[in-house]
Amino acid sequence: MLLYPGMTALDLVGPQTLLAGLAPGSLHLVAKDVGPVPSDSGISLLATSRLDAAPRDLDVLFVPGGEGSPAQMLDPEIRAFLRDRAARAAWVASVCTGSLILGAAGLLEGYRATSHWCVRASVLPLLGAQPVDERVVFDRNRVTAAGVSAGLDLGLALAARLRGADYARTAQLVAEYAPRPPFRAGTPEEAGAEITQAARAILERLSEQSRAAALSIRG
Amino acid sequence: MLLYPGMTALDLVGPQTLLAGLAPGSLHLVAKDVGPVPSDSGISLLATSRLDAAPRDLDVLFVPGGEGSPAQMLDPEIRAFLRDRAARAAWVASVCTGSLILGAAGLLEGYRATSHWCVRASVLPLLGAQPVDERVVFDRNRVTAAGVSAGLDLGLALAARLRGADYARTAQLVAEYAPRPPFRAGTPEEAGAEITQAARAILERLSEQSRAAALSIRG
Repeated sequence: MLLYPGMTALDLVGPQTLLAGLAPGSLHLVAKDVGPVPSDSGISLLATSRLDAAPRDLDVLFVPGGEGSPAQMLDPEIRAFLRDRAARAAWVASVCTGSLILGAAGLLEGYRATSHWCVRASVLPLLGAQPVDERVVFDRNRVTAAGVSAGLDLGLALAARLRGADYARTAQLVAEYAPRPPFRAGTPEEAGAEITQAARAILERLSEQSRAAALSIRG
Repeated sequence: MLLYPGMTALDLVGPQTLLAGLAPGSLHLVAKDVGPVPSDSGISLLATSRLDAAPRDLDVLFVPGGEGSPAQMLDPEIRAFLRDRAARAAWVASVCTGSLILGAAGLLEGYRATSHWCVRASVLPLLGAQPVDERVVFDRNRVTAAGVSAGLDLGLALAARLRGADYARTAQLVAEYAPRPPFRAGTPEEAGAEITQAARAILERLSEQSRAAALSIRG
């Protein structure tokens, strides 16, 4: 799992919680430097390996999204790392704008994929991917999830591919994942125009920087 | 927010993601010592304050659950810290077995509350709380959530109390929280007998240690 400054902590912690039981002790939290990495919500997660110390052959290569993702799209060292490990990984996965980082590394060219709703249709095609309005999208060995909380659904779907549906169901019950949000506002359609406008304002910088990064890579 | 060894990272990161926008810069991640605190899934979160450096008057005092929770129930320093801050906090909140730590500190005596399904009915009553089979339970200024992933629902419910429903809906849309788990196995009733037995085996140590801790406090 890749960590970087400005990642969204939940993008990573959601799926990791549901996948953690698969192979205890085989989790590698990699970053440019070992140590605390600040997320975009104020919590720091601890990176335990440098990029070059990550195993060459991974079962799952995972990339979270977050406010810091446009800088990662433009980072040659990050892109080279992802290309190298993705070439041998059994699964290549992302949550939220993590798919734009994969795309920037050339890893979604010709793949169906998703991302956060604020960039899905506007940025994914610039990176050669075909945007799909689904919560979790599998295409060959790529699996991408929609924004932030969609990582929990990706975690279960991937656990099922790796170890079977009953394993995934058990992880779901251990995490008591029977969601019951008090509102229906998780998609622009459900939230309505006014809430969507408020959310777009919060996300404006991220969507604009993502689009600019994608255009600069293409150009 | 209290951090301790063996906490479940998602218990804390879920609600924190949805509450983070309320008052940026006013988050205190407190633990016995400043520095990385290992969670029960292998990710460490960074504690930024010692217990005694936490502000005396808090808007929200929050306690996560996890495999390490029984040791916190029995820790006099943790219990004294929670009693002191809870006496002045506007809200006292927990996810999963975090409610058992609150209960061990005497903070749920006579309150309706919930916890992870594996301990809700068996342990909460030993601590003077009235167990309720709901995902998020409010009673006066106490708010407790069911297991692990229920923290997202608590985060939204608490955001709505603190800042209104439209604020919470906006946070929900930013986090794209329109959950669609690929299975229906988030409660024992939905999961069925076989999956529930497998999950109980994973959780057996936690439920037994929780019960023993509660009995020892009562005795």
